[in-house]
Amino acid sequence: MSQKVVTFGEVMMRLSTPAFARFTQSTSFNITYAGAEANVAVSVANFGIPSAHVTRFPDNDLGAAATQALRKYGVDTSFILYGDERMGVYFLENGSIHRASRIIYDRFDSAFAHIQKGSINWDEILKDAAWFHYTGITPAISQGAADVCLEGLQAARKRGVKISGDINYRRNLWQYGKSAKDIMPALIELTDVMIAGITDMENCMGISGNSFEEACRQTMKQYPAVKKIATTERDSVSSSHNRISAVLFDGKKILQSKSYDLTHIVDRVGSGDAFMAGLVYGMLSKKDDQQSLEFATAACAWKHTVEGDVNLASAAEIENLVKGENVGKLLR
Amino acid sequence: MSQKVVTFGEVMMRLSTPAFARFTQSTSFNITYAGAEANVAVSVANFGIPSAHVTRFPDNDLGAAATQALRKYGVDTSFILYGDERMGVYFLENGSIHRASRIIYDRFDSAFAHIQKGSINWDEILKDAAWFHYTGITPAISQGAADVCLEGLQAARKRGVKISGDINYRRNLWQYGKSAKDIMPALIELTDVMIAGITDMENCMGISGNSFEEACRQTMKQYPAVKKIATTERDSVSSSHNRISAVLFDGKKILQSKSYDLTHIVDRVGSGDAFMAGLVYGMLSKKDDQQSLEFATAACAWKHTVEGDVNLASAAEIENLVKGENVGKLLR
Amino acid sequence: MSQKVVTFGEVMMRLSTPAFARFTQSTSFNITYAGAEANVAVSVANFGIPSAHVTRFPDNDLGAAATQALRKYGVDTSFILYGDERMGVYFLENGSIHRASRIIYDRFDSAFAHIQKGSINWDEILKDAAWFHYTGITPAISQGAADVCLEGLQAARKRGVKISGDINYRRNLWQYGKSAKDIMPALIELTDVMIAGITDMENCMGISGNSFEEACRQTMKQYPAVKKIATTERDSVSSSHNRISAVLFDGKKILQSKSYDLTHIVDRVGSGDAFMAGLVYGMLSKKDDQQSLEFATAACAWKHTVEGDVNLASAAEIENLVKGENVGKLLR
Amino acid sequence: MSQKVVTFGEVMMRLSTPAFARFTQSTSFNITYAGAEANVAVSVANFGIPSAHVTRFPDNDLGAAATQALRKYGVDTSFILYGDERMGVYFLENGSIHRASRIIYDRFDSAFAHIQKGSINWDEILKDAAWFHYTGITPAISQGAADVCLEGLQAARKRGVKISGDINYRRNLWQYGKSAKDIMPALIELTDVMIAGITDMENCMGISGNSFEEACRQTMKQYPAVKKIATTERDSVSSSHNRISAVLFDGKKILQSKSYDLTHIVDRVGSGDAFMAGLVYGMLSKKDDQQSLEFATAACAWKHTVEGDVNLASAAEIENLVKGENVGKLLR
Amino acid sequence: MSQKVVTFGEVMMRLSTPAFARFTQSTSFNITYAGAEANVAVSVANFGIPSAHVTRFPDNDLGAAATQALRKYGVDTSFILYGDERMGVYFLENGSIHRASRIIYDRFDSAFAHIQKGSINWDEILKDAAWFHYTGITPAISQGAADVCLEGLQAARKRGVKISGDINYRRNLWQYGKSAKDIMPALIELTDVMIAGITDMENCMGISGNSFEEACRQTMKQYPAVKKIATTERDSVSSSHNRISAVLFDGKKILQSKSYDLTHIVDRVGSGDAFMAGLVYGMLSKKDDQQSLEFATAACAWKHTVEGDVNLASAAEIENLVKGENVGKLLR
Amino acid sequence: MSQKVVTFGEVMMRLSTPAFARFTQSTSFNITYAGAEANVAVSVANFGIPSAHVTRFPDNDLGAAATQALRKYGVDTSFILYGDERMGVYFLENGSIHRASRIIYDRFDSAFAHIQKGSINWDEILKDAAWFHYTGITPAISQGAADVCLEGLQAARKRGVKISGDINYRRNLWQYGKSAKDIMPALIELTDVMIAGITDMENCMGISGNSFEEACRQTMKQYPAVKKIATTERDSVSSSHNRISAVLFDGKKILQSKSYDLTHIVDRVGSGDAFMAGLVYGMLSKKDDQQSLEFATAACAWKHTVEGDVNLASAAEIENLVKGENVGKLLR
Repeated sequence: MSQKVVTFGEVMMRLSTPAFARFTQSTSFNITYAGAEANVAVSVANFGIPSAHVTRFPDNDLGAAATQALRKYGVDTSFILYGDERMGVYFLENGSIHRASRIIYDRFDSAFAHIQKGSINWDEILKDAAWFHYTGITPAISQGAADVCLEGLQAARKRGVKISGDINYRRNLWQYGKSAKDIMPALIELTDVMIAGITDMENCMGISGNSFEEACRQTMKQYPAVKKIATTERDSVSSSHNRISAVLFDGKKILQSKSYDLTHIVDRVGSGDAFMAGLVYGMLSKKDDQQSLEFATAACAWKHTVEGDVNLASAAEIENLVKGENVGKLLR
Repeated sequence: MSQKVVTFGEVMMRLSTPAFARFTQSTSFNITYAGAEANVAVSVANFGIPSAHVTRFPDNDLGAAATQALRKYGVDTSFILYGDERMGVYFLENGSIHRASRIIYDRFDSAFAHIQKGSINWDEILKDAAWFHYTGITPAISQGAADVCLEGLQAARKRGVKISGDINYRRNLWQYGKSAKDIMPALIELTDVMIAGITDMENCMGISGNSFEEACRQTMKQYPAVKKIATTERDSVSSSHNRISAVLFDGKKILQSKSYDLTHIVDRVGSGDAFMAGLVYGMLSKKDDQQSLEFATAACAWKHTVEGDVNLASAAEIENLVKGENVGKLLR
Repeated sequence: MSQKVVTFGEVMMRLSTPAFARFTQSTSFNITYAGAEANVAVSVANFGIPSAHVTRFPDNDLGAAATQALRKYGVDTSFILYGDERMGVYFLENGSIHRASRIIYDRFDSAFAHIQKGSINWDEILKDAAWFHYTGITPAISQGAADVCLEGLQAARKRGVKISGDINYRRNLWQYGKSAKDIMPALIELTDVMIAGITDMENCMGISGNSFEEACRQTMKQYPAVKKIATTERDSVSSSHNRISAVLFDGKKILQSKSYDLTHIVDRVGSGDAFMAGLVYGMLSKKDDQQSLEFATAACAWKHTVEGDVNLASAAEIENLVKGENVGKLLR
Repeated sequence: MSQKVVTFGEVMMRLSTPAFARFTQSTSFNITYAGAEANVAVSVANFGIPSAHVTRFPDNDLGAAATQALRKYGVDTSFILYGDERMGVYFLENGSIHRASRIIYDRFDSAFAHIQKGSINWDEILKDAAWFHYTGITPAISQGAADVCLEGLQAARKRGVKISGDINYRRNLWQYGKSAKDIMPALIELTDVMIAGITDMENCMGISGNSFEEACRQTMKQYPAVKKIATTERDSVSSSHNRISAVLFDGKKILQSKSYDLTHIVDRVGSGDAFMAGLVYGMLSKKDDQQSLEFATAACAWKHTVEGDVNLASAAEIENLVKGENVGKLLR
Repeated sequence: MSQKVVTFGEVMMRLSTPAFARFTQSTSFNITYAGAEANVAVSVANFGIPSAHVTRFPDNDLGAAATQALRKYGVDTSFILYGDERMGVYFLENGSIHRASRIIYDRFDSAFAHIQKGSINWDEILKDAAWFHYTGITPAISQGAADVCLEGLQAARKRGVKISGDINYRRNLWQYGKSAKDIMPALIELTDVMIAGITDMENCMGISGNSFEEACRQTMKQYPAVKKIATTERDSVSSSHNRISAVLFDGKKILQSKSYDLTHIVDRVGSGDAFMAGLVYGMLSKKDDQQSLEFATAACAWKHTVEGDVNLASAAEIENLVKGENVGKLLR
Repeated sequence: MSQKVVTFGEVMMRLSTPAFARFTQSTSFNITYAGAEANVAVSVANFGIPSAHVTRFPDNDLGAAATQALRKYGVDTSFILYGDERMGVYFLENGSIHRASRIIYDRFDSAFAHIQKGSINWDEILKDAAWFHYTGITPAISQGAADVCLEGLQAARKRGVKISGDINYRRNLWQYGKSAKDIMPALIELTDVMIAGITDMENCMGISGNSFEEACRQTMKQYPAVKKIATTERDSVSSSHNRISAVLFDGKKILQSKSYDLTHIVDRVGSGDAFMAGLVYGMLSKKDDQQSLEFATAACAWKHTVEGDVNLASAAEIENLVKGENVGKLLR
């Protein structure tokens, strides 16, 4: 049975200062490519599951480099569109101790933002897919992106492809004249598995529960397609030291994951996407939600140990972390 | 007597691949800051002449870093505006041998493009200035930039500040609904010293001479304020090897500079601005145009020996090159 | 019509000292992955032609990294085998001026050397292929490699897939008990297009002509399948400066290419493979041999401008070089 | 009201090994410029307060680079003297865990050490100043430096400019024939705000209290100009982990700051100067000493998160740390 | 009295990814040279004790570089043999937090593995030696290595040179047809001081005690030459945080060292060899075993603070750590 | 017969900007160690001749690093003294094209300058030496250095050790109250082989010939010990391109070497020392002066291809260059 995972969303050039340098002191940037949805495609590919990412790049060497960055990991890039506008960029300064990490986005008017309704042949792309993943960032970028995302969800639904959505409310986006509450409900109606915290649910659907569980119950009542809602819980002791765990509401009860103590963080960006990828992998290959949740949380934790947005772990490495094996060892 | 030079124009973050790496093979970018006019301000400051640069940056750490990059060289940055939009960026891949160098611009909708008529207090800025410099890039960016540039020229003219303009026609700019021929004539009418080649004169003023000299004569007839027109002549043997010389029409005759054989180019970007800065320096301190032209051409040649857009030479180093002293020596 | 190119051979980890550092002074190596045949697969993929590479890697992270290095460029890596032995390595010290460049090979007992007869399903791999490429290095590595190579050629011949062979005699290989003359003739019998110099022809087939043309005529007489023989001619002024041209014998006459003056070499390794890739591209898409030869020679010349074994040029860049366009320009 | 801060002292080239490399294993040094007093000038400039630094550099490119390093941050460098001697240098090896950090000073006979009495026009420099800062390092360098420092304090006193002194006793200095006790009392007599620990007070004034408070009371009795004495208290768990807090004696009582747990130190050098800069900023802009002390201590703590001697924090970032806001967050 | 320490064993090129990069994400390797026994030779040389290392390298620039890497630290390299085969290599990826560190060995068929019985003039080498050190890795590599090792031990024994052996059982070695139990007993019979854990003793001698002490007692009973057995005890909280202590059985009782909390590990590889070197140093210069054990354990702990296999500490630095002096200080 | 070469002189830390960066734009320095005489010791060691260098270093980690830098190449460092002062430093900015290279010396008051008469046991050091080498830099540093140098020459003379002196007049040195003409004659009287140009002979001995040959004849008349005088002739086309040849006067006639065209210079510093080392090697192993001169000139030329002051070539590589073999090849 096919397990192909299809993801859709913008991929940006990530320019990060080396080590812990501030923007104002660095003389170089490290270049990687990253996007919330593409991060999931790469991570599941690293877990051994075929994946394809759909996006739109500028038709220049930066778009070519971004394509290569995904293809390197085995993500199918044959459905990517190329056009005239610019590459979205984000600048990252990694913090240390009590100095916060900082991101400066420069993503407006990107090639992706100019994607047009009807430009993607979703039926072709999804024909052998098992899972479709989107995030709340995509419909926040432009009307075109929101339209194409909805087309993707509808095509997936029609074909019985499972749909996950990381409802990730970003106040700084949503600048094209629509609000999250205008757009997100139609997408959530088609979503099976959702990543959302209380504030995401409030901002996207106007749901205001007193607790995560209550908000989940209300969401599922209003959006009966939604079967699972998960979220990570982060305790930021400092930029160098976080604790991470996760919960999943399965419609009936809250499942709670183990907690991980991340004492020497290399790079936390993309760890939410690593969680999502872990959840997709778990739901495609594990026998119950608790196992999926543990795998996803371990994947999230593991991501903090490598530079870049994407999780470079194999499934075996995550399994070992779940079991507490090889932790801190020197493997020869 | 004050010799302060004021320049106006956009400053971009320049992201260049190290050594000769292609965009698709590099994992890092070197960061410098550059702009055709600011390059002049930095170079004349390095020659010992006070300078100030006027521009508009985003009000974030990237704008702060760009400001520091100018201030480091002693350029007065106290008139810079800060606002909400993005930093213009350009990406540079340095070529080698027959592989061309490539620039990808990403400067639309920058903080500078959003500069507004009336936002600059030119009288304050120019009150102790001897020279004002602009280029044809600035009015090509946005109506606001063109307006503010014209305001600057008018204020300079009123105060008797000498004006130089590098008529640098860029086909890819001019996207806000006006053409060069709509805008440039009003600026050229106020210009004393002009850098322009035949095609620049044709594209900006519709002048079509059969030779540089003929085009210059026509220009000066139509624009009597223009007293000198100069241009560099580049023979690109390869990306690694160019020959450079320059000519200046002084209203009566063509002056011809020495020619320089640039056999191991480190970085040619900004060498036209280095020429301009040399010409400004020469005209503020030399006794005749031939000397100014020789200084300017040597400055242009010297620039090819350092990385970055800005010329890091002292006036003494350029004088030595004009005289052929210390060339290729090991100075202890 | 399919243009897929299939290549077969070892891919090594290339460890090169940065800049011009000697082995004994360097504290780091730059890592790329390279192999004479894979270099062709990457280059034709960069030209826009689909390609697949067949090889065998160790089943560890180094094998994974090598796979990613090919996949990044769009080379189909799905037919690669993985097994227990080591990754072949080669160490490179780039020379300068009169200091020669040096390569230290460390490729014995690699995963590739242990490839076994029958382990590759050539029919599956070649079913949509237009071209198959091998080199004389592969059969020099081990009996298994020679066997699998012959199987590939036979399968290609059977399906009418065109075959090119770069007869690249390496005295230091051929250590498994067979000589080039034992093995190469059976491969050459199946070869359409050959890259070979006089000494290659002598060492592999015992043919000793007084000139390249004479050797070619003898070869074609004995091996009627061979329709074209080409070779590059290099004049090594110094490690930093070479001149390169090429000739092709089409069965009747010698075609001669333009000559290129490579005055500031960045990296010459892999330029022969770049020539081969250019020839394959030319023969798949050009209307005559002279055009193919010119494209191939320009590709060879262009390769010297980038670090690494693989040619990172697009077909358009090579076409421009053939036409002498954009050479040494700054493209904005 | 002007808030300009003037500082006086040597600026050295700091050559630090990258990461945690030992002197004997590093093949490169990172270059920054640093001096106890200039560090204060840069930090208050980063807080938005105008500052000027007075020093003497060699009249060569290293002096030029040092000047640029200060000017970059907006420090007024127009009063710097240039002369014939060498640039002071210090070499830094950052320790880790229980391996101590090491500094090798190479500052004797520097251009600064040769500064001459009467060579600085203090009246001109201080005419719009609100604060003058010196340290006990300066008078320890040479008689000339001690003389010029005293001249500065006298000029400041005369003009009602507030004076802070970081009494930083360094046993390895004081080699020109005078002891701290010969020189420091005359300076302390003119000082309003002092940074000093018990041993500093003992070594510089011969005061030997049983506690910091007692030593402070004795100092203030003998030196009635001194109104506040502060000091930081460091608990060095390891080179990677310190705890820092501070106390201030306001003439009546000891104020105690919050304590910060610095668990992943990037670079601790200059954190005392960051404290001093915070105190100056606080005393120029805060309503009471407790607030100033908290700001200063947070500034000291924050400094440990960036490489280099100078504190790159904005005032807003320090305010946030005082309030415990954004600590360890990822700010988008 | 001579204190010269002679060590024998393979030295490999160590290729480690910078910082915490994974093999699949790194574009460069840091190069050092390392081997369990040579690490001891370098460390004791750093402690001020003369040492010589005996090994066999390929007769090329990599062998030359490896020789230089040892000679740099003062290790006598005049007894090294050179021959035709390859340099052994190991690849290292340093882990972080719960991500394990990984080593990929590529050492088969190395120049060292081809060392031949009788090729070393042990009498010459050992004539002024006080100590001979080997490890269980050497006899695991090849019959030749095992033979030469035994020759060395016999020559040392004959001359009254003290012998230490780090019985370091490596399951992945021992591939030449002999098992540890075939070879190790003859070596252990000649050994005075042994480093071994319970599993090492079981694998090498078939001794299975319930505790370290019991295993030691059995070992000493069967191998009366063995007078001391020591081992380190590592608690791997994570890749970034270990705790280390050590025990020594002196034939009568267990001595226990202090424990060290290694909270920010830079590089743990080679820390066992640092322990061994500390023990050799202690036994050559300390008055009792407890002091030797404390010195050795501190050396082991200290090694974790520097990159590379070899311990770069001086004896004074280790003494300070034993005494808890200067820990985490900034030494000026 | 012993061929040991002993050299005496200061070794400095060389801090060079990477690539072609100016002092004012570089953020790091590459570290090597260099000195005119030690460069000779390293180069002859690389040619296979045993050598020892005598100098004095500060007794700190920088002195240790400098010692290691010599020892790495096999130079005997056991006669080096250690004391209290500083390490001499020189800063290097490599030029390109017409931009001159620049050196800033910072060597006054170094540990070497404080060397004292009688502190070196020359008899011990020279007992198995064949050659002693000094330069005119050493006696220019301090009276102590001049004294110890003379002691060395006297001891060498007494033992029949051949003496070479590179009379390298440096105007900026000689600041301790003596001039070259005060000191050099006594040294030259003991010298067999001299490197000197016309101006060196004039400045050191007051000899003013119209030609090199004439000056040599006068020198030899006045200093009969001198048997050979050689000098290199450099034509500096640019910083990137030099031509180099050499002449040797053997007492009767001028011998002229081949000329080398150095078209892509990596680093020219130390090439005179490379010439000297080549001459020493030649005179110890060649059958006539012409051969020695050709070897020396080729060594000088070869040095330009590697970074750092020291020549990293083997004797075989230089022999090949003399014969024109392998020039510009890729050696596999």
